[in-house]
Amino acid sequence: MVYLTRKEHFNAAHKLYCNHWTPEKNDAVFGKCANKNWHGHNYELYVTVKGEPNSETGFIMNVKDLSLIIDTHICEVLDHKNLNEDIDWGYPMQPSTENVAIWIWNTLEKHIKDCQLHCVKLQETDKIWVEYFGK
Amino acid sequence: MVYLTRKEHFNAAHKLYCNHWTPEKNDAVFGKCANKNWHGHNYELYVTVKGEPNSETGFIMNVKDLSLIIDTHICEVLDHKNLNEDIDWGYPMQPSTENVAIWIWNTLEKHIKDCQLHCVKLQETDKIWVEYFGK
Amino acid sequence: MVYLTRKEHFNAAHKLYCNHWTPEKNDAVFGKCANKNWHGHNYELYVTVKGEPNSETGFIMNVKDLSLIIDTHICEVLDHKNLNEDIDWGYPMQPSTENVAIWIWNTLEKHIKDCQLHCVKLQETDKIWVEYFGK
Amino acid sequence: MVYLTRKEHFNAAHKLYCNHWTPEKNDAVFGKCANKNWHGHNYELYVTVKGEPNSETGFIMNVKDLSLIIDTHICEVLDHKNLNEDIDWGYPMQPSTENVAIWIWNTLEKHIKDCQLHCVKLQETDKIWVEYFGK
Amino acid sequence: MVYLTRKEHFNAAHKLYCNHWTPEKNDAVFGKCANKNWHGHNYELYVTVKGEPNSETGFIMNVKDLSLIIDTHICEVLDHKNLNEDIDWGYPMQPSTENVAIWIWNTLEKHIKDCQLHCVKLQETDKIWVEYFGK
Amino acid sequence: MVYLTRKEHFNAAHKLYCNHWTPEKNDAVFGKCANKNWHGHNYELYVTVKGEPNSETGFIMNVKDLSLIIDTHICEVLDHKNLNEDIDWGYPMQPSTENVAIWIWNTLEKHIKDCQLHCVKLQETDKIWVEYFGK
Repeated sequence: MVYLTRKEHFNAAHKLYCNHWTPEKNDAVFGKCANKNWHGHNYELYVTVKGEPNSETGFIMNVKDLSLIIDTHICEVLDHKNLNEDIDWGYPMQPSTENVAIWIWNTLEKHIKDCQLHCVKLQETDKIWVEYFGK
Repeated sequence: MVYLTRKEHFNAAHKLYCNHWTPEKNDAVFGKCANKNWHGHNYELYVTVKGEPNSETGFIMNVKDLSLIIDTHICEVLDHKNLNEDIDWGYPMQPSTENVAIWIWNTLEKHIKDCQLHCVKLQETDKIWVEYFGK
Repeated sequence: MVYLTRKEHFNAAHKLYCNHWTPEKNDAVFGKCANKNWHGHNYELYVTVKGEPNSETGFIMNVKDLSLIIDTHICEVLDHKNLNEDIDWGYPMQPSTENVAIWIWNTLEKHIKDCQLHCVKLQETDKIWVEYFGK
Repeated sequence: MVYLTRKEHFNAAHKLYCNHWTPEKNDAVFGKCANKNWHGHNYELYVTVKGEPNSETGFIMNVKDLSLIIDTHICEVLDHKNLNEDIDWGYPMQPSTENVAIWIWNTLEKHIKDCQLHCVKLQETDKIWVEYFGK
Repeated sequence: MVYLTRKEHFNAAHKLYCNHWTPEKNDAVFGKCANKNWHGHNYELYVTVKGEPNSETGFIMNVKDLSLIIDTHICEVLDHKNLNEDIDWGYPMQPSTENVAIWIWNTLEKHIKDCQLHCVKLQETDKIWVEYFGK
Repeated sequence: MVYLTRKEHFNAAHKLYCNHWTPEKNDAVFGKCANKNWHGHNYELYVTVKGEPNSETGFIMNVKDLSLIIDTHICEVLDHKNLNEDIDWGYPMQPSTENVAIWIWNTLEKHIKDCQLHCVKLQETDKIWVEYFGK
């Protein structure tokens, strides 16, 4: 079993805010992230798949295909978007790094064939990132 | 003459848009950056000052003081803000990386004493940055 | 289960030395790291916690709280210190990266509530780091 | 159990090509990587071992020894080489990142004493890497 | 005057070799870089242009256009190529980092309109790079 | 004229302290850097030379020679040392990053032949560095 990671990225705006909370509670919990006019990030996305290398190509998966899947289903959807306003997540969702990573996993999983999705790592800043392994 | 650089950062939302242009022209010129709901970046800011080292401290400027000036006058003002909506630049300004860098120079210059501001470098993504030397 | 990582750092001096060994044996085992007058490093510290995202905040833990815990209990204690002279580890300890990482785990574990400490990664240089998972 | 990682690197040329395929099929599968005159990479190699810290040294393994093993058995062999032409892998092998990582594991494993090899991570570009854990 | 930098990259094979020298002299001067079967690098390319920001766009040059010019005239030509075998430089040229950077400058200069090319920086490894300012 | 940069590094301990000041003044000016038992850094050193490429080698200077000069005269002298205790600078010197960079310039300059030393950049942390151009 070999693990293959591909890095992609997207830039997006978001805010962290609970509409049924008071502004004061939003400030207390989310701090500057609750700014009503949004802020934004350069998100770095690392997708890891696992499998056994093909005896001819030496690939567990063609990394060009992996890159295309990530670009088509994730980066084209999220890049230069407002994560609170522009995205139909399919359910009400606070766009925290944790929740976006889980959504990316669920979106990618159905497109990875022949090998298995292993990890989605989403980096919000140089100092903060999350990893999700599907369970 | 020695050059001293201090790196700081801030996260912000912005869009690039000319209100007196058609949406089509905005799309043609600014592409995804014209998304009306904004997008955002992790901005990395590098401020370089120059001067001669003090014979006792060996400093051209105490880097703690430089950091405090940048934080107070730039990062506190721009961090987790919407560069189109939240900031009073003092004049109408398209918040391109170029224009923000020039504004940072003009803001910082009056607070640097005893040595000279040399360069403001503002990095928007890993692949794009600008530098301004004050003229 | 989602994994959240926060990066912090501290700068410290140390040496690797066994007082009951001869200087020759110290040199043979520790090389330059045995210099009696110490050397030092920029230590990069990565702390990973795991848990399930809160349905309202989307957080497994507020990263501001995680950062505060690390700063208070680790960075404030170790930053700009001599790891051989200035720190009360609670037991005799060679300040190798391995041992410091284990001490950081043991110190942090009691302060992480509501989610679980998963990994302490301590990076000594760009080329050397250790990870400890608590057992 | 503590995990210790050492980073090393080597520069090499390679191409991805199946001699019993048509040039068209090689192009379709490998794209630019099939260029008959080769291309090349700066390979970053991360080797992780695991064990318990020695009570005197605080080391699970002396990192100087780990570095020497990697340099002697891997970097001296692969650095500034053509991975298709210059290396005797011991068996016919497509020099994909996956296959090279497995070969590195198998080569290193017999030289790691007193602690255990845990992971070989081989990075081909800033955006692509593989990890192998020995099974 | 503001300076704008765009980073791109390409992967290539090369060797450093003077055909009219003996193999021994080639080894003495170029060391491992003289390996007859080539080696390779991930080249990072930084192109800096300078000019005054447009009053409407805030751009000294649209970075999408700059990226397209670099990709079309440099990366498409050099990526996944053998710098000794595959490229028509227009004159006999040792493919050292210095010489490739000068060639990139000369190639790009004629395509930069409305603002000026300022610097071509070409990075061969994390530890080695060259800069050329056109004279 | 082409500029060639080589990166090297060393790890060292130091403190910033004026013996003829009170401890209180040392604390006020140098803060944590005045800790009497020292702290330390991973110093990254970038040396830039300039010249014209040789028509045969394509080099302005053989980067192996540049690396050897830096290692012999700087890294061997400063690596794993205490910058206050172990080094004979030739004159009384506060080991600030500024002063160490100037000393490195003065030490290297006499060993660079056939091309010219252009810049010494010394990085103390990811956020702080100095550059010296010899005047």
